[in-house]
Amino acid sequence: MQFIQISSRSLLAVFFLTTWGFTLLAATPASDLRVNAGRIEARILQLGTFGANPGGGVSRVAFSAADLQGREYLMALMREAKLEVTVDAAGNIIGHRAGSDPALPPILFGSHSDSVPNGGNYDGQAGVLAAIEVAQVLFENHVVTRHALEVIIFVDEEGGLIGSKSFVGHLSPGVLAEQSHAGVTIAEGIRRLGGDPEHLDHAAHRSGEYAAFLEMHIEQGAVLDSEGIDIGVVTGIVGIDWWDMIVQGMANHAGTTPMDRRQDALIAAAQLVLAVNRIITSEPGAQVGTVGRISAEPGAPNVIPGRVVASLEIRDLSNARILDLFARIETEALGIARATGTTISFRKSPIHETAAATDGAIRNTIANVARRLGYSSKRMPSGAGHDAQAIASIMPMGMIFVPSVGGISHSPEEFSDSEAVARGANVLLHTILALDGNSRDRSLKPEE
Amino acid sequence: MQFIQISSRSLLAVFFLTTWGFTLLAATPASDLRVNAGRIEARILQLGTFGANPGGGVSRVAFSAADLQGREYLMALMREAKLEVTVDAAGNIIGHRAGSDPALPPILFGSHSDSVPNGGNYDGQAGVLAAIEVAQVLFENHVVTRHALEVIIFVDEEGGLIGSKSFVGHLSPGVLAEQSHAGVTIAEGIRRLGGDPEHLDHAAHRSGEYAAFLEMHIEQGAVLDSEGIDIGVVTGIVGIDWWDMIVQGMANHAGTTPMDRRQDALIAAAQLVLAVNRIITSEPGAQVGTVGRISAEPGAPNVIPGRVVASLEIRDLSNARILDLFARIETEALGIARATGTTISFRKSPIHETAAATDGAIRNTIANVARRLGYSSKRMPSGAGHDAQAIASIMPMGMIFVPSVGGISHSPEEFSDSEAVARGANVLLHTILALDGNSRDRSLKPEE
Repeated sequence: MQFIQISSRSLLAVFFLTTWGFTLLAATPASDLRVNAGRIEARILQLGTFGANPGGGVSRVAFSAADLQGREYLMALMREAKLEVTVDAAGNIIGHRAGSDPALPPILFGSHSDSVPNGGNYDGQAGVLAAIEVAQVLFENHVVTRHALEVIIFVDEEGGLIGSKSFVGHLSPGVLAEQSHAGVTIAEGIRRLGGDPEHLDHAAHRSGEYAAFLEMHIEQGAVLDSEGIDIGVVTGIVGIDWWDMIVQGMANHAGTTPMDRRQDALIAAAQLVLAVNRIITSEPGAQVGTVGRISAEPGAPNVIPGRVVASLEIRDLSNARILDLFARIETEALGIARATGTTISFRKSPIHETAAATDGAIRNTIANVARRLGYSSKRMPSGAGHDAQAIASIMPMGMIFVPSVGGISHSPEEFSDSEAVARGANVLLHTILALDGNSRDRSLKPEE
Repeated sequence: MQFIQISSRSLLAVFFLTTWGFTLLAATPASDLRVNAGRIEARILQLGTFGANPGGGVSRVAFSAADLQGREYLMALMREAKLEVTVDAAGNIIGHRAGSDPALPPILFGSHSDSVPNGGNYDGQAGVLAAIEVAQVLFENHVVTRHALEVIIFVDEEGGLIGSKSFVGHLSPGVLAEQSHAGVTIAEGIRRLGGDPEHLDHAAHRSGEYAAFLEMHIEQGAVLDSEGIDIGVVTGIVGIDWWDMIVQGMANHAGTTPMDRRQDALIAAAQLVLAVNRIITSEPGAQVGTVGRISAEPGAPNVIPGRVVASLEIRDLSNARILDLFARIETEALGIARATGTTISFRKSPIHETAAATDGAIRNTIANVARRLGYSSKRMPSGAGHDAQAIASIMPMGMIFVPSVGGISHSPEEFSDSEAVARGANVLLHTILALDGNSRDRSLKPEE
């Protein structure tokens, strides 16, 4: 009796929910759907066997034999989840799942499967297996969404967002001739994956083709882990600018040049390093500024440095704010140069990443979903670059972060707990369902 | 008549001065003797042709073919000055000139003839040609001193005082196996010069064998030149100690690590560089402290430096004071480490030079001679190392500095005006004569 009762409720649910955009044929209400934490973890570890290093960690760089093997494995999993798998001209793997309303644009979600050399098992990979798990859970529970769904595995994220830039038609043609970590050119690498680098335009999409993009990713920082928070609701992906800072003093004999006759470029550079830190931290906000590289010339213990070259990187959610902060550093540098008898100049590096905001409605949806699932969450910027950054140029985008233990990434020690990854995958699942259900609101601009 | 009168006076002078230690056979009173500025300059330029670089400057590194040619040229000049030339087991060239009193120990003076790679024509070389000029002038004017005189041309000063350390028996045997700038071992190089590296003890001398050592040298700093002073009366040659300063922080992703969660080794190192400067300049004195080399690891613009290694050099006329200053830096480093969440450690480098004071009586003699000759002078330390430093361990030592234009040294631009060099050579000449005449005073400890 109890069974029949439940059955009746299901039938009611089927009728009711279909009008809201998806068909539920199983007994589980959609709000009760959960991913399988053990399955995701087992698949992450299995994927990690392709390109595993003897000493731990993985080197599954894009276009390598291990990358090809990993992709075959992932495509098999996608087919198991009843996704219709294709590889686009850029080599991106796309798994399509039809929706109930062919007039609606698909919801896209996924991440990348390549690793840095000597990297870990979670950067990109956790997000890819969470996305496949979402498709698998929907299939197993016979849920059909109104929008079509597409799981995407981007190619060569670590080499400079190659797949996602191609997906939005923004890959500079010159990049194809560059050497990849696998030792072949990007073009040759794309060919290896079954792509068609001569016709990358076939992989390019435009605004309106997709409803939204979602990416679950490990944080790669220590904020969530150290604060014990389950989910990061990403407010945006920071813009990045690099400069070289050049301090010109006068090299001189460290024995014969009294202290008051020196034009020591390193004294000026030390003041500059501290000024960068002071200026960046003088305002509230998530901006960061880093001097990561420094060299003093001629570089002998018994010669006063005549020239110092140091790097400057600034990241913020606003590219304009990056330039404001830089302008303050430039002004401060003038004073340092005057006081130390040196000259300080700045040379812009070609490294420039445009900041990408996440969609406000999607952010709210992710935060609401997390609360409904009983997970703590925190709004935070992504200080690292992601495929979502490129994709944001043609569709509303949202990102879900899960904690990285110790904030360690790009390292064999990179680790995220299976429950933490599952929480992220659950948020991904229910955010997709919520967006699909709410797709009449402006954020997804449904065609009706 | 006039001639006879002068002649009579000369005879009187001969009689009178002989009792004071030297025989004057010529018409010129000893106090009127002057070196030939043009001759010294011509010989410096001639010496500079051996090992001259096409673009200017000289690379007459010890043991090179150019070094051998230069030494042949110098030995010819020494013989022209009627010096009895020998080469000792270390390859040092010694030109002996007998004195009137065989019981007195010789007065030694000279410098080195080798250059650094791509060096100039004055470092060492000006002093060598000034010393030969002194012998030449004494010969031409028939002056016989009471003490024997020895002009010495030390071997491989730039490679670590090889000749002068051998002269006092202080060369570490392991040094012989080291590679020289000429591409051969020091031992092989010494053999090339006609020395006998297996019997370096034959070149070693002891306290009491010589009355004193004098070295004229270019300042290699800008003090005399910028203050318009003719002669530097060297108060001592500074001691030198080197350390490595190691700052250990935590390398981390520059995008995902907020400013308040960083343990940036370069921030700590920048504070340390400024602390070194502040501590060294906080006390009056001629001490200098230099951070000449710095590296940040891993050294990428987008990674927070996890480790910085920087050099620390301190020089002072007192080795104890060097250690006092270092102790203050160590204490300050503790506070910096605490404030920045890093650890800072110091590793002593094997580089250690013991400070060498010049002899007080010789200093006074040099200053008096300069005044008598109408030259301005200034007491000053030598911040650079010199052969005199090694020699000071077995005899009273004095050094005479002449101005380096712009303070430039170890460079093709190294230059000292011919008149400036001649003033230094005149001071050398008259200091030798004064010491020879005053040799009954305690400073030269004559055997009588």
